[in-house]
Amino acid sequence: SSVRSGEMAKSAQLIDNEVFRAYATYAAIVLLKMMLMSLVTAYFRITRKAFANPEDTASFGKGDSAKKFLRTDADVERIRRAHLNDLENIVPFFGIGLLYALCGPDLSTALLHFRIFAGARILHTFAYLIPLPQPSRGLSWAVGYAVTISMAYKVLSKALYL
Amino acid sequence: SSVRSGEMAKSAQLIDNEVFRAYATYAAIVLLKMMLMSLVTAYFRITRKAFANPEDTASFGKGDSAKKFLRTDADVERIRRAHLNDLENIVPFFGIGLLYALCGPDLSTALLHFRIFAGARILHTFAYLIPLPQPSRGLSWAVGYAVTISMAYKVLSKALYL
Amino acid sequence: SSVRSGEMAKSAQLIDNEVFRAYATYAAIVLLKMMLMSLVTAYFRITRKAFANPEDTASFGKGDSAKKFLRTDADVERIRRAHLNDLENIVPFFGIGLLYALCGPDLSTALLHFRIFAGARILHTFAYLIPLPQPSRGLSWAVGYAVTISMAYKVLSKALYL
Repeated sequence: SSVRSGEMAKSAQLIDNEVFRAYATYAAIVLLKMMLMSLVTAYFRITRKAFANPEDTASFGKGDSAKKFLRTDADVERIRRAHLNDLENIVPFFGIGLLYALCGPDLSTALLHFRIFAGARILHTFAYLIPLPQPSRGLSWAVGYAVTISMAYKVLSKALYL
Repeated sequence: SSVRSGEMAKSAQLIDNEVFRAYATYAAIVLLKMMLMSLVTAYFRITRKAFANPEDTASFGKGDSAKKFLRTDADVERIRRAHLNDLENIVPFFGIGLLYALCGPDLSTALLHFRIFAGARILHTFAYLIPLPQPSRGLSWAVGYAVTISMAYKVLSKALYL
Repeated sequence: SSVRSGEMAKSAQLIDNEVFRAYATYAAIVLLKMMLMSLVTAYFRITRKAFANPEDTASFGKGDSAKKFLRTDADVERIRRAHLNDLENIVPFFGIGLLYALCGPDLSTALLHFRIFAGARILHTFAYLIPLPQPSRGLSWAVGYAVTISMAYKVLSKALYL
């Protein structure tokens, strides 16, 4: 029906915009990267036999034989820290980046922000998990942080309404 | 004024779209569910008398009598893990789901994604907090994860702009 | 080209809306406030010499002389709890607030919600980090929580599509 296509057209507006398409692409990539950390954690919990919940160790038997797998493992904790760092940094990128993409920035400037952020967070993950010597992790974190601050500056200077 | 109503009309466009209304409904539901975890944590901290901050135990008296309530409790830690798992999974659903809703998917396909995700996360919470034997928690986590990946695939195939 | 300006015009719609500008402003402020917690954590980790990763202590020498800095510090842990509390509360505000801003609320009502939330979370941070005696932190948390619930109620009553 024409009502339906009218609705479809409306919903398609944002995604037809090149800046918004670029935002959607890089936002999806970094959110997927963040989600990947769950799989890495699960993999290390299973291979290292290091679990947080008693019900997760039930398949290893009962009593003390299972209880010994309720423990922390240095590598599992490292991945969990990397995952939390993603939440602390990728969530602000997603939020501020969305507002930024709706502020009508130049396509080339927007792409520069999105690409540098995505690259920096992928580097940050490798630096955290391999691990690479510092300042690899610190620098890649700082670059992503600076990109988000730069987008926030644009948002506040364009939209400020207190 | 007519300028004002023009603005209102613009802002109302997205929310008049059925897919976006469905997204808004399920996104609000799962975010509220996530927020509920704060109340559950507070309830268990108070009833179990297990706090993380010295100022929270001041009403129990001073010195050692209050200090003994600065402790971890297995049930409080379990709820905190469930809350963190919500952050790790509901935040990507919110972000990727928003981009997905703006990609103009079929209403029925979108509803299927949103309903399965919300159901899976509610099941996940019960499986974590009761707790139910595995693989209840693992499966409900995996279903929600798969729904988000499916939406991300749609976003990247519709919007890809690297 | 005219196609390009058409796209720019579309992308500018939301940000021309006063409610959405107010949302963008306060959302950016609270996300930046949340990001500030990373810098505070880094500052306290460095001044207290309390690190989580062995590669972060390499500049203090090798072996036991560096190992002793791999430790938890009460103040660092406090900041990390404040940061996690921000994630648990500012993320739902960002998500539900976005949906709320798209529901066409009155500008004055929307501003009231956004201003109270931002004020409450800034107070919460001071209450957590100074720390102020309870119920300062509890009350400022509850006010921000109530604002988000109020916006979620508006979203669900306006958009509900199950």
